[in-house]
Amino acid sequence: MLKAEALNELIQVLGKENVVTEHEELLSYSYDATAAMPHQTPDVFITPKTTEQVSEVMKIATKYDLPVYPRGSATNLSGGTIPIEKGIVMSMLHMNQIIEVDAENLTATVQPGVIIQDLNDAALEHGLFYPPDPGTVKTATMGGSVSESSGGLRGLKYGVTKHYVMGMKLVRANGDIIKWGGKTVKNVTGYDLTALFTGSEGTLGVITEIIVKLNPVPEARKALLGVFDDIDKAGNAIAAIIRNKVIPATLEIMDNITIRTVENFTHAGLPVDAEAILLCEVDGYKEAVEREAALVEKILKEQGAVEINVAKTDEERDKIWLARRNALPALAQRRPTTVLEDATVPRSKIPHMIKAIRQIAEKYDLLIGTFGHAGDGNLHPTILTDENNKEEMERVDKAVEEIFQVAVSLGGTLSGEHGIGMAKAKFLPLEFGEAGVKLLKDIKEACDPDYRINPGKMVRRD
Amino acid sequence: MLKAEALNELIQVLGKENVVTEHEELLSYSYDATAAMPHQTPDVFITPKTTEQVSEVMKIATKYDLPVYPRGSATNLSGGTIPIEKGIVMSMLHMNQIIEVDAENLTATVQPGVIIQDLNDAALEHGLFYPPDPGTVKTATMGGSVSESSGGLRGLKYGVTKHYVMGMKLVRANGDIIKWGGKTVKNVTGYDLTALFTGSEGTLGVITEIIVKLNPVPEARKALLGVFDDIDKAGNAIAAIIRNKVIPATLEIMDNITIRTVENFTHAGLPVDAEAILLCEVDGYKEAVEREAALVEKILKEQGAVEINVAKTDEERDKIWLARRNALPALAQRRPTTVLEDATVPRSKIPHMIKAIRQIAEKYDLLIGTFGHAGDGNLHPTILTDENNKEEMERVDKAVEEIFQVAVSLGGTLSGEHGIGMAKAKFLPLEFGEAGVKLLKDIKEACDPDYRINPGKMVRRD
Repeated sequence: MLKAEALNELIQVLGKENVVTEHEELLSYSYDATAAMPHQTPDVFITPKTTEQVSEVMKIATKYDLPVYPRGSATNLSGGTIPIEKGIVMSMLHMNQIIEVDAENLTATVQPGVIIQDLNDAALEHGLFYPPDPGTVKTATMGGSVSESSGGLRGLKYGVTKHYVMGMKLVRANGDIIKWGGKTVKNVTGYDLTALFTGSEGTLGVITEIIVKLNPVPEARKALLGVFDDIDKAGNAIAAIIRNKVIPATLEIMDNITIRTVENFTHAGLPVDAEAILLCEVDGYKEAVEREAALVEKILKEQGAVEINVAKTDEERDKIWLARRNALPALAQRRPTTVLEDATVPRSKIPHMIKAIRQIAEKYDLLIGTFGHAGDGNLHPTILTDENNKEEMERVDKAVEEIFQVAVSLGGTLSGEHGIGMAKAKFLPLEFGEAGVKLLKDIKEACDPDYRINPGKMVRRD
Repeated sequence: MLKAEALNELIQVLGKENVVTEHEELLSYSYDATAAMPHQTPDVFITPKTTEQVSEVMKIATKYDLPVYPRGSATNLSGGTIPIEKGIVMSMLHMNQIIEVDAENLTATVQPGVIIQDLNDAALEHGLFYPPDPGTVKTATMGGSVSESSGGLRGLKYGVTKHYVMGMKLVRANGDIIKWGGKTVKNVTGYDLTALFTGSEGTLGVITEIIVKLNPVPEARKALLGVFDDIDKAGNAIAAIIRNKVIPATLEIMDNITIRTVENFTHAGLPVDAEAILLCEVDGYKEAVEREAALVEKILKEQGAVEINVAKTDEERDKIWLARRNALPALAQRRPTTVLEDATVPRSKIPHMIKAIRQIAEKYDLLIGTFGHAGDGNLHPTILTDENNKEEMERVDKAVEEIFQVAVSLGGTLSGEHGIGMAKAKFLPLEFGEAGVKLLKDIKEACDPDYRINPGKMVRRD
């Protein structure tokens, strides 16, 4: 139970309307978008508006030894924003100003509560865009996205969030306010703490301002869909596209289970007998797009696609992408619980990985649909299950662990874009060994010796 | 003086031929390419060949409390590789294997002693290239380049070294061997220690293997040169190019002093009365290059260039770039000592910065030539002086400090690409404040509590 003095001090700093203690309200801040996670109702939910307020909050938290859980829209998929001890849940949603779009320097400066799509809308007025495109652009915040180094659909050509963050303002656990990086492409002053904090899952400090790089909007784009009766042929097509020096903006795959489920959900006319479909979009100058699209079409044919569909209009393009965007919602409605994984492998290993997932599904008698970002090796095996069925959940746990083992053994990684959070913390030694986990802990403790910010995520106190 | 036991243990691990103690030889390892720095002759110079040997060396160094200075080709420009205490200088030049170029995954895996150009030659056989292009590609090593997060000529369009490092193997001060990252574009497992170690100037660990991203070689390129009689017009041209959504591969500037000096040196026919010349290269698909080059030409005209030269052949292109590549050697031959700075500002501030540098040169009665990477705001004010002239060097020190102050006040940074090393460590509070410097120290001490690896660089023990 929160001491009255602590509560009073928070109210003093933030105002009464930004300090919530009603149990019913607090309940809704004890979850995020991750299935089957432990959680705890916090003592208090607060909404600061300034960096200075966040600094004061951290000092109060230190004084009263309270954990602080920063939070954006909580679309997190690794339990990264869930409170696991009593304490303070701090929403960044009131810090939602787009401070500046600087068209001359191709940068934007935003507060952490800005929704990604809102930044894109503001950038578009200058003919610019912010390339990272996680599925949740319309709900997720920049702060959450930077804290997780979100990936999404455009990783292959454009990279991911970490490739766009140029600087930030941040509050340390002790309340120190730190500024790092800036608007220059080149900056080697000090360790690259901008990069260290990006993807640190809110465990090293509270991000209160972010400078990101923007790109000019490409003048043209073209989408294609290729249907395959064999997963290896689809894999070969991916390799052949890259080998021919085409780097598509987006190159996605859906397996048979996903195709059937999406078709059942949308009746879009997808080929339900296909083993895999590849969805590809190229963008850039219009002549380049024409040449690349023609080359991709030729490659898909050569690699044995049984059907190829090239979008001729924006409507046809949108139809192709609608199928992909519906993959997760369609899968999610088949069973009560959706365990969405993101084990990631070098792109040349995609066919191996898809086949391994199929074997694991059979071994543990589970329904797993796989779709994802083939171009960057980031697959989403999606286990459709029911968290109330204890026996089935045990099989799910075993399957997940085996998926990780396969990914790491193929030169891949535990998480391509969803983060470690609580969900995967115990698997870290698989990828880093004990010496690597020790180094992670050393870094955490250097920045936050008391495990005050977002405790229980990524690394845990011994 | 090194204890005999320590020396014997080093010889046991590395073999006698890889452990040098002759004073005359050691002398040459007490410098790097930075002017006017303190230095110390080391006790011993060693050349390991494997990660395991590096690990054993770090354990011996710990046992006998010896500092270790890792070193590539020592082209460093911030005193980053100079030993300042007795101890071990460790050359990575014998670890020079290109382990793999993986064309399917667009990656290369190299040892730290590989020369950048050698990687490019190997990549070119697959139609690929490694975009970071510091002036020293033919001498600098990948290990040094990654440790400094080198920039160079292609920063604007392609980014810098940190945008290409995907993973690494590293030995901690205590001898622990750590592997981080890998071949996947997406990887959010653990803190992004690959990014933290990149640009950490060899102070957090010894890099023994590096995975980098490669790009397909663009099919066409075109170079242009624009001559300006007014520095503001050149600045406006830079802004107009970006505003028109052209992102050149390279966009360089030379001021009048540099132009005169280069012309005097090369007799290439440069316009010695020009206030500035801009050198621009666009690359990509041939149609895109044609359109972009035409647009840049039109912009240069509109912004008042008094002369424009578009390269029509490879020879003409090489001639344009020869002038730029000769800027530093030409300047360097005018006086005995060349103090090459790299204060960096947002590109929109380039005209401000060039004018401020000119005022500082007048104020301190110094000869400063300025050239550099206009597209990414990374200027090289080059002070031509004589380190034996104590009075003049005092003026140089004051001028350098003032250049940094102006850069930071314009939203820039102390160093765009040369690093902090010894040369700029004392200026860090100017950019980060005391709280920021404290955080740097906390990170250093978490990784290397005894300041064993490359001590005296970036952060110093209290």
